[in-house]
Amino acid sequence: MPEMIGIDEIRRAAERIKPYAHRTPVLTCNGLNKMAGCRLFFKCENFQKVGAFKFRGACNAVFSLSEDEMKKGVATHSSGNHAAALALAASLRSARAYIVMPDNSPEVKKAAVAGYGAEITWCQPTLQAREDGLLKVLARTGATQIHPYNDPRIIAGQGTAALELLEEVPDLDVILVPVGGGGLSSGTCLAAGAIPVIGAEPKGADDAFRSLQEGKIVPSVNPDTIADGLLTSLGELTFSVLSKHMQKIITVDDPSIISAMRHVFQRMKIIIEPSSAVPVAAVLENKDEFSNKRVGVIISGGNVELFKLPFAR
Amino acid sequence: MPEMIGIDEIRRAAERIKPYAHRTPVLTCNGLNKMAGCRLFFKCENFQKVGAFKFRGACNAVFSLSEDEMKKGVATHSSGNHAAALALAASLRSARAYIVMPDNSPEVKKAAVAGYGAEITWCQPTLQAREDGLLKVLARTGATQIHPYNDPRIIAGQGTAALELLEEVPDLDVILVPVGGGGLSSGTCLAAGAIPVIGAEPKGADDAFRSLQEGKIVPSVNPDTIADGLLTSLGELTFSVLSKHMQKIITVDDPSIISAMRHVFQRMKIIIEPSSAVPVAAVLENKDEFSNKRVGVIISGGNVELFKLPFAR
Repeated sequence: MPEMIGIDEIRRAAERIKPYAHRTPVLTCNGLNKMAGCRLFFKCENFQKVGAFKFRGACNAVFSLSEDEMKKGVATHSSGNHAAALALAASLRSARAYIVMPDNSPEVKKAAVAGYGAEITWCQPTLQAREDGLLKVLARTGATQIHPYNDPRIIAGQGTAALELLEEVPDLDVILVPVGGGGLSSGTCLAAGAIPVIGAEPKGADDAFRSLQEGKIVPSVNPDTIADGLLTSLGELTFSVLSKHMQKIITVDDPSIISAMRHVFQRMKIIIEPSSAVPVAAVLENKDEFSNKRVGVIISGGNVELFKLPFAR
Repeated sequence: MPEMIGIDEIRRAAERIKPYAHRTPVLTCNGLNKMAGCRLFFKCENFQKVGAFKFRGACNAVFSLSEDEMKKGVATHSSGNHAAALALAASLRSARAYIVMPDNSPEVKKAAVAGYGAEITWCQPTLQAREDGLLKVLARTGATQIHPYNDPRIIAGQGTAALELLEEVPDLDVILVPVGGGGLSSGTCLAAGAIPVIGAEPKGADDAFRSLQEGKIVPSVNPDTIADGLLTSLGELTFSVLSKHMQKIITVDDPSIISAMRHVFQRMKIIIEPSSAVPVAAVLENKDEFSNKRVGVIISGGNVELFKLPFAR
């Protein structure tokens, strides 16, 4: 499959989304640097609109469409951040967003998507029901489908986070990024150019790790991890990009993820979701490998249920 | 009591602490602006060293002392952030810090103070025991006492937060600041010049509100509030500054404080302690007064027990 995207597409995406997306800060933390034995630079997409990097891709996709296309709106199935991101992006063009959502989605996510004015179609919480529901919506509305990650416009949009990080801190030795469906990680690889990119994945959802090892897409089956943003399988496009450009993937277990999340909360005083703690855990569990290096870390989002924090005394 | 401090002292403090203290970011949040009906600019001292503005004052005090004074070290009694701040500041001058701490202080604070290399003297958790303990330490060591707020060097140091805020956002209509012992609020008043400063205080610890009303220091007796950083009474010096320069004090109840804290966590994705939520609550509970204004808010700190968050479903 041809990639169809490179650094130029990412630069164009950056221009396109600039009026709408936050340029998020790059934070550092002496305490975590000491703990890790390297210098960490956190690109804080938890401060992005809708609380996650997802707004970058959705915004780039929506603003890539023609006026005619936008008259019919955009559509996707999603239980989470992509739905909210697409709904907000569509509303910025005064266009409709049609979201097929499993009826067991968290109430806070349902409220967010509805709050951005999207039209929600409820479905059973199975992939089949979601895809069937979306097909019906597409047939009825003529809307353009925007896949959450297996789409060049989405990948280019997600790559703008690493682009901004490198504008601010050009001399990184490596960038770490969580791997779910591969949209953010593919965009990061393409934006990073010659700088190596290492993926981080939960051991309980290590389908991308196994996919790169086996040289083919290994689907995610019954994933079991606290990092609820990283449960999905790679798509053809993201698999192709990661196969070619990602140096490797490090896997970490849930106790390490929870511990890393707690350290970020306590020392940086910022709120991150478990998926964002996965690359932090990858550094803390592999200190020799990163010793004294300048390490970029993409913090993917901050949408976490605050009354269900996984910290124990 | 003469003030002995003005904008010049605060500017000198800013120069003095510059190599050691973080220049913390000023954050904004569209969601909270909409909710409040005004434009909020948050000066984020939760990202300051030791997790609170207290490092500014302690650092200014310690770096104001002579070499000879520093040979004998510095001392205070404190159960919280001032102890950690003074311990860190002293360690930066390779000097001793003697801290008298109640033996029921939170473990995390004990560990922080010990971690910065301070010499801790344990005492009973009463003001009398703390003051007696400190007198003994001072007699034994000849150390310089650094009071947590009733000290011109401390007030000048705390004022540097507002100074930085105004450098970044000069055209504020008003600045809101929490009032405890009055160090931060006094420094903010003196740094703000002609820009009005409004204090925010918990209803359960409204001694400063009553002090300004009655024109004399009304001590804090049995304060009862979740805002555990705001329990102390004003000192002579801080009372004098606030009487002259603070526009007024708004009081808010604990449910409003908890609600404001939750909104900041959820929308800004930053971790703040309850005391920091007090001025946020003051805005959210008095929307008419701040409607469409440009409102600076000093976020005092982020040291909160993450497994004891006061949010209910």
